[in-house]
Amino acid sequence: MGPTLAEAKALIAAAQKVAAEIDKPITTVVVDSGGFIVPCERMEGARPLTPSIATAKAYTAAIMQRPAKMLKTWCQTQPEFFAQVSRMGHHPIVATEGGVTLKREGVLLGGIGVSGGTGDEDQEICEKALAATGYDIDFAEWNRVKK
Amino acid sequence: MGPTLAEAKALIAAAQKVAAEIDKPITTVVVDSGGFIVPCERMEGARPLTPSIATAKAYTAAIMQRPAKMLKTWCQTQPEFFAQVSRMGHHPIVATEGGVTLKREGVLLGGIGVSGGTGDEDQEICEKALAATGYDIDFAEWNRVKK
Amino acid sequence: MGPTLAEAKALIAAAQKVAAEIDKPITTVVVDSGGFIVPCERMEGARPLTPSIATAKAYTAAIMQRPAKMLKTWCQTQPEFFAQVSRMGHHPIVATEGGVTLKREGVLLGGIGVSGGTGDEDQEICEKALAATGYDIDFAEWNRVKK
Amino acid sequence: MGPTLAEAKALIAAAQKVAAEIDKPITTVVVDSGGFIVPCERMEGARPLTPSIATAKAYTAAIMQRPAKMLKTWCQTQPEFFAQVSRMGHHPIVATEGGVTLKREGVLLGGIGVSGGTGDEDQEICEKALAATGYDIDFAEWNRVKK
Repeated sequence: MGPTLAEAKALIAAAQKVAAEIDKPITTVVVDSGGFIVPCERMEGARPLTPSIATAKAYTAAIMQRPAKMLKTWCQTQPEFFAQVSRMGHHPIVATEGGVTLKREGVLLGGIGVSGGTGDEDQEICEKALAATGYDIDFAEWNRVKK
Repeated sequence: MGPTLAEAKALIAAAQKVAAEIDKPITTVVVDSGGFIVPCERMEGARPLTPSIATAKAYTAAIMQRPAKMLKTWCQTQPEFFAQVSRMGHHPIVATEGGVTLKREGVLLGGIGVSGGTGDEDQEICEKALAATGYDIDFAEWNRVKK
Repeated sequence: MGPTLAEAKALIAAAQKVAAEIDKPITTVVVDSGGFIVPCERMEGARPLTPSIATAKAYTAAIMQRPAKMLKTWCQTQPEFFAQVSRMGHHPIVATEGGVTLKREGVLLGGIGVSGGTGDEDQEICEKALAATGYDIDFAEWNRVKK
Repeated sequence: MGPTLAEAKALIAAAQKVAAEIDKPITTVVVDSGGFIVPCERMEGARPLTPSIATAKAYTAAIMQRPAKMLKTWCQTQPEFFAQVSRMGHHPIVATEGGVTLKREGVLLGGIGVSGGTGDEDQEICEKALAATGYDIDFAEWNRVKK
């Protein structure tokens, strides 16, 4: 399950619009609910490693099913264990700003990752892109048992 | 050095047009001359691993500076050595169809990789996309010494 | 894109001249904008691992598009995330002195890495070598969006 | 132990002279008897991965103490075992042309590796460079017990 390519590209366009406003070239990646890339775009001037970094952020948000920055407490309180978990997927699981889960009416659809600005800027770009395109913007720390 | 994002997206659009004609959903990746992704797009129906496969193909064509299928003889005559070389970059070096070097008036600009069809279809899509967008389509097996 | 071999060797000669003045044998590496080695020279007395260390420094400066020491804040404020990013290329991304970006009139050309002295000495050698050979010596923390 | 930087650069110059005659841009690497790089030079037009490939060849010839192509029989008769051994150093051990041991009057000094031409051309360049600079050009398959 995931956004269509057209929906994913609309997310990227929304992210790039915010990036242009703050004058920071970024790479944006959208992945499906399995963590596989749908599209990726590196703006002129965004640095060579930003596609890899943005992919890790989007992957994390999709697979861990919550924004990547929600993992910071885990990363800080159990650094050795988190380091092991972070290598269990096929991209690194990262505990940082700029990776947010894609969810619509409670249904998980994937993740978006942004790299190119400060952590706070990357996060802001993700959140504004989600808001502009009608995705949920609230995330619970924990899933619940399905009744 | 590499194509601009707009030029790279024009390449992807050209590739997707050919893919639609032969009714095969594909992922297309364009990388710069250093092998770093510029854009990637996975069409509806293209399988989850096609972005990774197309990335390896585009990376190979950029870094090895000739179409990936030109490496087949090397791969077949010295399989152990080729396997070692294939791990020397930050993506796998692959000897297969569907990865072609981007070059314009002799200047190396990067690579395009396509995954989703048969090898021959992926190759045909690359070549038609290059022809449609004005890139060089002839490649020498060897570079020459600059005088 | 990158310096020619002759230009890169002129950079190495300039670095070795400074190293001789401060009586520290060094290894100097110059890489192109994709992070691939152009030349490397280890002076008599420079230790065995200095080529690997200097390569990582030059690679970092080229790929991250700013001097390697500019990454120290990132490395210190988000050590786990930085450690993950540091393994995303085909050499380690290092946050330290002695790796400086090669840029001329704003055009990125690669990186130079020096290993053999203290961090401050390695950095000074890079900067003096750049100044002696006419490369830019100012670097912005962030790229800007191209209009 | 190893060649001085000046001696190693003379070897590279000799190799580049042969490369220019056959019109193939190459990368040449010289390592010391411990397998650590002394100098490396990539000629204009030599491809991005040639420094990594030439390093593996030079490393192999130094550490295995015989030309890298002498390992082909081993590689072919015991491929699984050879594959394991090939990962025991800090560069790949490769069984191919273009890596030759540096030895003078029977004293092991390191290795030279060339990448950029066909296997036979890379080998020929190594051998002519050794002959031009006065190194031994005969190598025994086995060392002998020192009496």
